[in-house]
Amino acid sequence: MSARAGAAEFLGSAGLAAVVVGSGIAAQTLSPGDVGLALFENAFATALGLTVLILVFAPVSGAHFNPVVTLVDALSGGRPWRTVALYVPVQVAGCVTGAVLANAMFGVPTALSTTDRATWPHLLAEVVATAGLVLVIFALVRTERAHLAAPAVGAYIGAAYFFTSSTSFANPAITVGRAVSDTFAGIAPASVLPFIGAQLVGAVLAWLLVRALFPVADPDPAIVPDGSHSEAAAS
Amino acid sequence: MSARAGAAEFLGSAGLAAVVVGSGIAAQTLSPGDVGLALFENAFATALGLTVLILVFAPVSGAHFNPVVTLVDALSGGRPWRTVALYVPVQVAGCVTGAVLANAMFGVPTALSTTDRATWPHLLAEVVATAGLVLVIFALVRTERAHLAAPAVGAYIGAAYFFTSSTSFANPAITVGRAVSDTFAGIAPASVLPFIGAQLVGAVLAWLLVRALFPVADPDPAIVPDGSHSEAAAS
Amino acid sequence: MSARAGAAEFLGSAGLAAVVVGSGIAAQTLSPGDVGLALFENAFATALGLTVLILVFAPVSGAHFNPVVTLVDALSGGRPWRTVALYVPVQVAGCVTGAVLANAMFGVPTALSTTDRATWPHLLAEVVATAGLVLVIFALVRTERAHLAAPAVGAYIGAAYFFTSSTSFANPAITVGRAVSDTFAGIAPASVLPFIGAQLVGAVLAWLLVRALFPVADPDPAIVPDGSHSEAAAS
Amino acid sequence: MSARAGAAEFLGSAGLAAVVVGSGIAAQTLSPGDVGLALFENAFATALGLTVLILVFAPVSGAHFNPVVTLVDALSGGRPWRTVALYVPVQVAGCVTGAVLANAMFGVPTALSTTDRATWPHLLAEVVATAGLVLVIFALVRTERAHLAAPAVGAYIGAAYFFTSSTSFANPAITVGRAVSDTFAGIAPASVLPFIGAQLVGAVLAWLLVRALFPVADPDPAIVPDGSHSEAAAS
Repeated sequence: MSARAGAAEFLGSAGLAAVVVGSGIAAQTLSPGDVGLALFENAFATALGLTVLILVFAPVSGAHFNPVVTLVDALSGGRPWRTVALYVPVQVAGCVTGAVLANAMFGVPTALSTTDRATWPHLLAEVVATAGLVLVIFALVRTERAHLAAPAVGAYIGAAYFFTSSTSFANPAITVGRAVSDTFAGIAPASVLPFIGAQLVGAVLAWLLVRALFPVADPDPAIVPDGSHSEAAAS
Repeated sequence: MSARAGAAEFLGSAGLAAVVVGSGIAAQTLSPGDVGLALFENAFATALGLTVLILVFAPVSGAHFNPVVTLVDALSGGRPWRTVALYVPVQVAGCVTGAVLANAMFGVPTALSTTDRATWPHLLAEVVATAGLVLVIFALVRTERAHLAAPAVGAYIGAAYFFTSSTSFANPAITVGRAVSDTFAGIAPASVLPFIGAQLVGAVLAWLLVRALFPVADPDPAIVPDGSHSEAAAS
Repeated sequence: MSARAGAAEFLGSAGLAAVVVGSGIAAQTLSPGDVGLALFENAFATALGLTVLILVFAPVSGAHFNPVVTLVDALSGGRPWRTVALYVPVQVAGCVTGAVLANAMFGVPTALSTTDRATWPHLLAEVVATAGLVLVIFALVRTERAHLAAPAVGAYIGAAYFFTSSTSFANPAITVGRAVSDTFAGIAPASVLPFIGAQLVGAVLAWLLVRALFPVADPDPAIVPDGSHSEAAAS
Repeated sequence: MSARAGAAEFLGSAGLAAVVVGSGIAAQTLSPGDVGLALFENAFATALGLTVLILVFAPVSGAHFNPVVTLVDALSGGRPWRTVALYVPVQVAGCVTGAVLANAMFGVPTALSTTDRATWPHLLAEVVATAGLVLVIFALVRTERAHLAAPAVGAYIGAAYFFTSSTSFANPAITVGRAVSDTFAGIAPASVLPFIGAQLVGAVLAWLLVRALFPVADPDPAIVPDGSHSEAAAS
């Protein structure tokens, strides 16, 4: 992992958490009378913001911002496993930093969330949400359309805020980051591990689906000399 | 029909029903005070989610998820009729599965809908909605712009949720799937056949329009050796 | 004007009026408590629907659906003046038909609107709205980016519903069509001519701006042998 | 600076202010019961309108409409410093004109805003908002994707209306323009300089980040003979 790639993952993860948590605080504060409207505002901001963040950082780090994306990238022969070991903590640190920044921008104290979310329907929803996210990204990568990942991932998450009951965290790093804001987008620490477990299950299911539905000719894409596969896999 | 194509139609149809029914449940639950706002949230999620589903599965199965699209594809010399016989039941099974999954994600029991929808204005609306959908898809296919079908179909359905009185089902498979959720997006079983009848009328009208407005040079596109036409027709 | 082009202008204009009036009726009925929310739903549906209609019909007729666009196209050396004389009545007939269809889809009687709109601020807004629309279209055409007109025009109108006080009719044909629905998007007949007058003023101002800001090398683009200019001008 | 470029910066800046202030007035008037909904309508119109304005004027002037963008463009070896001295006053005059036009379209008197905004959290938010905007633009420019700046900037601002507490002015010229409308989007004159100071801090931070994350091969891009860099930097 180059220093530039690490910085890009950090900034992108921080940006993602700032968008998710910050727009959640704004929505909750400004639309107190209707939770659906607040979630709509939150989803609108997240869909647009995530699209832009992927667009900006994809050429530098692949714009994962998400440990399960980095994991499936490695499983598919993309980046080496030592990159996983470096990306993941940077992603988590970035998401925590971004949540703290969002709190500061809105003058809200940083505090552990008190929103319990770990019900069985919500965990099923996280499996579905994460499987869908991984399927979208790697379907595009394996059909040489990685340049569409930015708007596709933004659109997917915008939809998934509503079509899943968990509002689609789908990302272990953002799950940790959301735990440090006791606001609209927060999650109580006790719900974090169950959510991450469900996300890992979803990622593995999606990876099996991706292999079956989108076979690639080259069984070992990591050896492509110009490295274009692993960059593509990242965006 | 290859196994991969069948799996893609099943997963895509299930995804579509999960998005439509799931976001309907979320919208109804979180925005109880304004039906228009709930429909807006439902339309936002459906427009984005449908765009992404078509993008993901188009290279594998053509991303129909809709019996009338498969039917008109066959009428236009695209996929053979035996594919219609295989796609259609898979689409219906996928949509039912997706609706059941949405119910489960929200902890809502799977039950037949009690929402009667079969009024004459709604049936007229389904004719219009389906005709518009078929016209959009095949206009793009026949002018070599099939790559724009994903965002165009998503945008069309997002608009049609509002500009038709029926909220634009425009798809016999999703009409059946919606019958097994007694929630916002549901439809009572007694309204299913009238809706499907109106959709078939709309599809036939649109097919006549498409032939008149977008003539193609090759009278028998199915014989194109590389199969590119039938794939294009599918997306 | 070929019969196909005339049919495309008729269908596209009817589709536009059905989207504008139909989504207006849905919004007004389903969101009775907040006019801004109803306008938001109306703008969302119109932005998406208009984008799709231009995409579909541009290869056939240029997808004007708007007399001032046809007029400026002719002024710029695009289609001949006899086409203006044929397109304009077809556009008006299409918009009236689409409004009647929207009324029928919602079970609302077709009746003259009783919404007076002709105030001086609204007329100023129509000048601005129409000038902006014409500028967007012909700026793209004259810089060889006509393929971006569909999403750009949809986005422009979606924004203009809110940034102008008149909600941006910006089209004499749709202004006439809206007069036959006494619903959210309607306009009283007495306000129609003042609106059309303001739209013509805006179109002429925009055309002067376009000529100054986007000069083209060829002073008489209509003589380009392959006709690509006049087609481009149309989309 | 050619006369055409100056006119484009003036018109684009006026258009931007008209969209921001005008849609703010409409939102505030039509959705008086929920500030979040009004901001959502304002953000929707601004995201779409800004995208279209950049698309239209980029080939003529670079579509900055923003002194900090012009400043960073000059710092990066793009346009010469004398262009900065000419663009900036034109941008400010354009934004003031656009705000006055918005007031006139809504029949609202032009008056100094009474909305104090200069709190420490809001100033932090302006640093973040401006840094993000500059990063988005120059990341795209330095990776040869300047053609994506129009939708990316529109999407970024749409998100930033919600994820920052200041609603993301991020532009000294629009900050001045908003001061002359005592409406939803206004800012009291006493808050203008603190906001501009925060914006300058954000721009400098972003410029340091851009240099570190997106190094370009040519250390002096301004000498590229065909001028393509400086045009790219502008859009």
